[in-house]
Amino acid sequence: MNRDPFVVVGGDAAGLSAASKFRREQPDRDVVVFEQGQWVSYAHCGLPYFIEGTVDRLTDLLSLSPTDVAERGIDLRRGHEVVSVSPTERTVTVRSEGERFDQPYSELLVATGARATTRSFDATLDGVFTVHGLDSAAAIDAYLAAPGEYDRNRLGDGPVDRGRVDHNAALAPPERAAIVGGGYVGVEMAEALVARGLDVHLFQRSSHLLPPFGEAVAERVAAHLGERGVAVHTDTPVERLVGDGRIEAIAFDDDRLSVEMAVLGVGIEPNAGLLDGTGVDRGPNGALHVDDYGRTSLPAIYAAGDVATSRHTVMGRSTWMPLGLTANRAGRAVGATVAGDPTPVGDVAGTAVVKAFDLECGRVGLVDGDEATDAGFDPVRETITAESRSGYYPGAADTTVTLVADRGSRRVLGGTIVGSDRAAIRIDTLATALDANLRVDELERLDLAYAPPFSPVWDPILVAAKVLNGRLA
Amino acid sequence: MNRDPFVVVGGDAAGLSAASKFRREQPDRDVVVFEQGQWVSYAHCGLPYFIEGTVDRLTDLLSLSPTDVAERGIDLRRGHEVVSVSPTERTVTVRSEGERFDQPYSELLVATGARATTRSFDATLDGVFTVHGLDSAAAIDAYLAAPGEYDRNRLGDGPVDRGRVDHNAALAPPERAAIVGGGYVGVEMAEALVARGLDVHLFQRSSHLLPPFGEAVAERVAAHLGERGVAVHTDTPVERLVGDGRIEAIAFDDDRLSVEMAVLGVGIEPNAGLLDGTGVDRGPNGALHVDDYGRTSLPAIYAAGDVATSRHTVMGRSTWMPLGLTANRAGRAVGATVAGDPTPVGDVAGTAVVKAFDLECGRVGLVDGDEATDAGFDPVRETITAESRSGYYPGAADTTVTLVADRGSRRVLGGTIVGSDRAAIRIDTLATALDANLRVDELERLDLAYAPPFSPVWDPILVAAKVLNGRLA
Repeated sequence: MNRDPFVVVGGDAAGLSAASKFRREQPDRDVVVFEQGQWVSYAHCGLPYFIEGTVDRLTDLLSLSPTDVAERGIDLRRGHEVVSVSPTERTVTVRSEGERFDQPYSELLVATGARATTRSFDATLDGVFTVHGLDSAAAIDAYLAAPGEYDRNRLGDGPVDRGRVDHNAALAPPERAAIVGGGYVGVEMAEALVARGLDVHLFQRSSHLLPPFGEAVAERVAAHLGERGVAVHTDTPVERLVGDGRIEAIAFDDDRLSVEMAVLGVGIEPNAGLLDGTGVDRGPNGALHVDDYGRTSLPAIYAAGDVATSRHTVMGRSTWMPLGLTANRAGRAVGATVAGDPTPVGDVAGTAVVKAFDLECGRVGLVDGDEATDAGFDPVRETITAESRSGYYPGAADTTVTLVADRGSRRVLGGTIVGSDRAAIRIDTLATALDANLRVDELERLDLAYAPPFSPVWDPILVAAKVLNGRLA
Repeated sequence: MNRDPFVVVGGDAAGLSAASKFRREQPDRDVVVFEQGQWVSYAHCGLPYFIEGTVDRLTDLLSLSPTDVAERGIDLRRGHEVVSVSPTERTVTVRSEGERFDQPYSELLVATGARATTRSFDATLDGVFTVHGLDSAAAIDAYLAAPGEYDRNRLGDGPVDRGRVDHNAALAPPERAAIVGGGYVGVEMAEALVARGLDVHLFQRSSHLLPPFGEAVAERVAAHLGERGVAVHTDTPVERLVGDGRIEAIAFDDDRLSVEMAVLGVGIEPNAGLLDGTGVDRGPNGALHVDDYGRTSLPAIYAAGDVATSRHTVMGRSTWMPLGLTANRAGRAVGATVAGDPTPVGDVAGTAVVKAFDLECGRVGLVDGDEATDAGFDPVRETITAESRSGYYPGAADTTVTLVADRGSRRVLGGTIVGSDRAAIRIDTLATALDANLRVDELERLDLAYAPPFSPVWDPILVAAKVLNGRLA
């Protein structure tokens, strides 16, 4: 059988998961992966920990080397940009080193990910960074070192942008940094830059850090960041980055703060431009809308990862939630489906966890009351604080759980958790409960683990369920 | 309305949970709790940690003081033994300080717990202990101290058996201890006695420690105990405790080992004798059989906690699983039911976690293949080892997961986990999945938490589900 190859655009989590699974199931068929840049298969979520110094080498963040990819029988072409798609011809047009060529495909997977937005901020100034991609992490790391003192062993032997590193390594190191945006990136970078000895100011335009985690988490995180030396400015939109060539200050609220560094964590957006003009269906934020099997509305074209939508476990509707597991899982499922074994990509519950110094935060499902109301529910919420272990066992720590349920059906809609002792991982109990459509009274009766070193008799999640169920009775 | 009181026999987890909930719902009705001993409401699971020295004072293990109980409006009578029940008269006969009297009840809750068995071992020898009740923990603690050096501040100001403490404190301290039985008590006491500086030998008659946790956990625990200095003797039934007044040796397998201490962890059995002769229905191990609301087969008589059966989440059948959460939850539910709000006691999945030095172990559901087959399933199992965090993040540790599913239906039947990094608490994900009857492919698609400090992209439970589902496909 002479079939055109399965073509994948994008060599990160979704793309390489798909290619790997496809080749494992169909070792006689070809798969070609076009990656615009030089890096493939890296752990985006690890970037702050490299900058912090917790991870020794940039290349420690690579999951697969190009050699690993080749050994899987994947035809990986780095430095190849796919510039257009012809769904009718079933070809993509590829540009590389000034050449262009057409590549036919039997099936196409668009796995082009997302990019950090910079809004109207001038991100061309020296000292201004987004945290997206290994080259940005390398640039930040170099910028933090005194001129002539940057240890290039930190970079490992990957295809790093040496010019950008050299440029940043030559500049005087910053003493004070502003972080613009109090989401995941902002909170993780606050921890990282404090660890690197900087005076860190975190600016959030709304009243709460980590908005998807709700008020109870936000308050504990803000207090904890303060204890650890971060100046937290909530309700403070940053208006402008000030500087001439290099950042000198940030302007906000008729005031300004002198800084030598600014990190922008103001959001991301899907890299969905490749299918512009094709009439493809789109979902929230312009992401490529896909069905349960990752199929776009165009024949033989799939999308997976940060560029694609997912179906929400609780709401049932299409949503855009770019997260690591979603990308890996959807990529793998598309690889299986294209190989002939139709496999659902799975719904997303919006499960997310984040570390803020010693605090662990988790969230899942519908946490925001307005969002729950918009989705047709009548949300009731309860927040409790309980101990993480038996009170007499050393290490027991206050764990705050918020639980949201629908008043009429008692169905659990979502929840959050925050605490310093094994708090984050407990969100998986709620994620499983959401997936299974459990009611609050069913949640209350779950037979969860108890042993003094790990959990009290009534796990904090059970306590929250007990109290919320009492209110619903 | 002149109604007889709600009478509870037993002042520990189940009994006091029931009494507290009942009074909260029915503040105008009376509840009387008869407790044979002097202690009430203590954390049985904390005893090894007191002996270890991790918990400073014996009384730290009390959940409620008699004063707390009184403030809840509960008529608590310590030193009152209920010696018989007349289901037709609706009275119990009580003995206290040589007196006997009859107490009428409107409803009766039997919450008499369980006791440690000693099999045919001579537990009257000095230096031989079971670990059951605060007085046994105090006696062990005193026995470990050199004569004249026992710090009685360790005991707090509770109603401890001072005579027993004094007797043990006067004896020469042991240098070597044998622990008979490799279940929870045995493993936890091995850790405790090593911490107290003893040469510890752990004897298990079967081939695996912690039998309910299956082979994969047993092997890692045995290896780890060995690394921490415990001599583990599996397949070695202890035949006899040797001594004249005081333990001198244990005899096994045509051999003997000189010891100055023996801890018996050879099982427990329900204290169900109170209803002997009433014809009450019984379940496994002679436990009192109860329905979904904790009702025995006798009118107006309930049972809860370690003396009662529970319905198994996976098998649906009556089982006897004496565990802490079960007792608290069932007691509370019976209290609500008797107060007029019928509340199910909840099924048990057999969720259990145990700490063995730095290893954390968890189990839930059907783990043993024969048990699963007996219950009508066709069990398939898979064991994987995966990292607990992203590999590049410090602290990532091998986590071993065993997953058992039914071949035909793909339903998840049970599983185990063992590892050193937040392993135990992850069993709650499986406990929730079992309660919700999830299939392996549904488990594989759960949206679980991912962040480098807490979990890898594919949580070890997802890895196990992925591999097992691949085998079932």
